[in-house]
Amino acid sequence: MDELPGALGTSASLALRLGQAIFSTASLLFMCLDIEFYSYTAFCFLVTIMGLVIPWSLTLALVDAYSVFFRRPSRQPGVMSVIFVGDWVLSFLSLAAACSTASVADILITSNSFCHAKLCSRYQLSAAMTFLSWFLSVASSLFNLWLVPSL
Amino acid sequence: MDELPGALGTSASLALRLGQAIFSTASLLFMCLDIEFYSYTAFCFLVTIMGLVIPWSLTLALVDAYSVFFRRPSRQPGVMSVIFVGDWVLSFLSLAAACSTASVADILITSNSFCHAKLCSRYQLSAAMTFLSWFLSVASSLFNLWLVPSL
Repeated sequence: MDELPGALGTSASLALRLGQAIFSTASLLFMCLDIEFYSYTAFCFLVTIMGLVIPWSLTLALVDAYSVFFRRPSRQPGVMSVIFVGDWVLSFLSLAAACSTASVADILITSNSFCHAKLCSRYQLSAAMTFLSWFLSVASSLFNLWLVPSL
Repeated sequence: MDELPGALGTSASLALRLGQAIFSTASLLFMCLDIEFYSYTAFCFLVTIMGLVIPWSLTLALVDAYSVFFRRPSRQPGVMSVIFVGDWVLSFLSLAAACSTASVADILITSNSFCHAKLCSRYQLSAAMTFLSWFLSVASSLFNLWLVPSL
């Protein structure tokens, strides 16, 4: 099997997964720390999705690290399909969360009365981190997509 | 080549494309007709994306109708790749537009002072139509995805 960079078990995939975990954690921290986020549906949605993305990315990062350092890449078709479908679903969900958060932050800034400047910039930062996490998630699912037909 | 239902040039694909065009047009009409939508960024984004989705779906519906009724399915790899990438990009964009519109409509309803009940329900209907259009768009791009490796 040719080694496609970015597919499961390579060091590029490990970097992508770690990036996803870091950006998702940053997004969660920007949103949750000392802010009452639960008054808006979009923010609760973001926190829920980030709570799903972080363990998913960390688990796959562990699998990648094991493959990279102990040289045992095992790619059963069933496992690859589950990872591929999970990646796509989570990337759609994190895009949805990022867009909702961004538009709610935008409307809060426009209407000007709902949040202080510091709060709103934290909402925006959280949305930006979610967009970055979504981008990396799409990248790793695209890399895995090229691997699926060869199984 | 085996005829996968839903791939380009089949009657199922024609139905999917027509559904996308109908739902996108409904979403655009719910949003634009007699409403000043341009005061919110998310609504302008929705109108822009629907203005892209409608001609795209109608063009591909015409291609499908030609293939169905005149029996000449021509699938060059280049054309299929362009259609596949276009479908994915448009489905991501329409998901983003649907989520933004839905969350803005939700926050307008919660804050209660920005829109009348009738207006807000129209925003919600527009978001729902966009979600349906996104769903059909993902379906047709998934069907085309299974066709890409066989080219």
